[in-house]
Amino acid sequence: MNTLPDKTIRINRVAHGRRRPVMLAVAGDSATGKSTIAAGLVEALGAGRCVSVPTDDYHRFDRIERRKKPFTPLHPDCNYIDILEQHLQLLATGQPVLKPVYDHSTGRRVRPELVEPNDFVIVHGLLPLHSKLARACFDVTVFLDPDEGVRRRWKVQRDTTLRGYTRAQVADEITAAEAESARYIRPQRAHADIVVRFGPIPARNDPPDTPLSAELLLRPTICQPDLADILAPDLTRTIHLRLARDTDGRPVDSLHIHGYTCAEENAAAEKIIWHAFGDPRTDVPACLGTIAPGARSTPLAITQMILLHHLLHGLR
Amino acid sequence: MNTLPDKTIRINRVAHGRRRPVMLAVAGDSATGKSTIAAGLVEALGAGRCVSVPTDDYHRFDRIERRKKPFTPLHPDCNYIDILEQHLQLLATGQPVLKPVYDHSTGRRVRPELVEPNDFVIVHGLLPLHSKLARACFDVTVFLDPDEGVRRRWKVQRDTTLRGYTRAQVADEITAAEAESARYIRPQRAHADIVVRFGPIPARNDPPDTPLSAELLLRPTICQPDLADILAPDLTRTIHLRLARDTDGRPVDSLHIHGYTCAEENAAAEKIIWHAFGDPRTDVPACLGTIAPGARSTPLAITQMILLHHLLHGLR
Repeated sequence: MNTLPDKTIRINRVAHGRRRPVMLAVAGDSATGKSTIAAGLVEALGAGRCVSVPTDDYHRFDRIERRKKPFTPLHPDCNYIDILEQHLQLLATGQPVLKPVYDHSTGRRVRPELVEPNDFVIVHGLLPLHSKLARACFDVTVFLDPDEGVRRRWKVQRDTTLRGYTRAQVADEITAAEAESARYIRPQRAHADIVVRFGPIPARNDPPDTPLSAELLLRPTICQPDLADILAPDLTRTIHLRLARDTDGRPVDSLHIHGYTCAEENAAAEKIIWHAFGDPRTDVPACLGTIAPGARSTPLAITQMILLHHLLHGLR
Repeated sequence: MNTLPDKTIRINRVAHGRRRPVMLAVAGDSATGKSTIAAGLVEALGAGRCVSVPTDDYHRFDRIERRKKPFTPLHPDCNYIDILEQHLQLLATGQPVLKPVYDHSTGRRVRPELVEPNDFVIVHGLLPLHSKLARACFDVTVFLDPDEGVRRRWKVQRDTTLRGYTRAQVADEITAAEAESARYIRPQRAHADIVVRFGPIPARNDPPDTPLSAELLLRPTICQPDLADILAPDLTRTIHLRLARDTDGRPVDSLHIHGYTCAEENAAAEKIIWHAFGDPRTDVPACLGTIAPGARSTPLAITQMILLHHLLHGLR
């Protein structure tokens, strides 16, 4: 079974006659894995209980119109940022919105679609944590901060296959976006409850085809799951928790999930965490950790389990 | 000059740091002249101070999709009626909305557009007065209730020239819509501050090409202009005020504006009212009373003057 049991849904979210959804933000630069993480969560929770809001839908211009503009889609002015903020507030208070739609395959804005908040609203995109008012709408916030070399590979791979760009165009776009990424995207990292960094392990010289590892900073801004109790010492090769200092010097829990370990070790680690967080009688849903048809990542699966745990059980 | 002087704008509409617009609703069945009235008002006020919101933009389905549905666009379920209500509330409190757009020339929903409330918001369409919450957003409400024979002629004329329908399709559509018109459109008449009825004068047998007359019911639900003081006895042939009983039996002012009088009489009546309501030094704006390029209607012009008076000076 791929969806979680209904009984685990948290209650007491009815206010003024409207049921308020649990709101998750997944922010990050272009091609950092935001929609991949979100897709697995939607499938695990069940599409009927969940709405997914890609903030790229709030682009103010078509791709062709943007060529004449002095900014890239990373700039707040290139997006209906006030309307995004307004829609987040409406969704957070249980109200429907008529969400704009941006078609990435053609680079054009098309007709809007009705979004009615369900139990869970997963908002993913470039700027969901840009403003204080938008941030206040979320119960859990994530910033994806992969190794820059990895992100560039992902971006070339996706944009040349799914979005009709050439390799040269992607390289130009990355260069053009750098200043705005530094100014508008990366500052959101400071506002996330969880920072996820996919990449190779710096100290090791693993072969290039080694699956990526991940480091998760679990900040005490929300009630994080008690992983110290869950992680058995014999899992240390796959996953371990370390006390570390955050970029601002404050203590933070740093969860390391390694990509190089073998399939059996990975499966054991996933299973222990899944059973500790979820229903001990169910298997790990196959949708968790999916990076492409037939391709899985244990660090991604465990990241998604932690987010599911927050969505289903966590409260600020 | 076609626009009214800025100094006449009413003040004291700033709340919570947002300027709140004056909101007018023009409701009525299909082809009752809603957008004609609205267009003249927008031009008189100045497009830069005014936004026009046609509620047909909130159609939930394309024309081709509607063929498979058990209702017509007159049915609330055929429209994003909750989103319309939400957008009216946002506009009324000075906030922008991303308004959907329905293209009547193709019958298709297209990309939305940003609407930022200005000094005036003019909402015109089939159902702006359908719900209590929507009605509460307006300062002035109008229901257009023309003679049914006149409305049918207008509808055939417009839909066969501008919307790509055949005469037979228009006739079928009128028949198909009748029950929903009775159920959803006509009940809005009871909620209007002003009811406007264009048509021939029942008691007279004017030739068919005689310009239409109009009767305006001015209900005491808002502070109506003091026309008794303005209307000189020598204008009686063109325009006069009568005490009448509303459909529910309550006393109401009924303003009759005749279409059969000559150009000089019409011009004199328009001028007296314009000078009493507006700036005595300016001429009647040419945009008022325009029914088509080169065609004018004095009853329409005077109706628009009364609405302008409410927008510029009237307060509930």
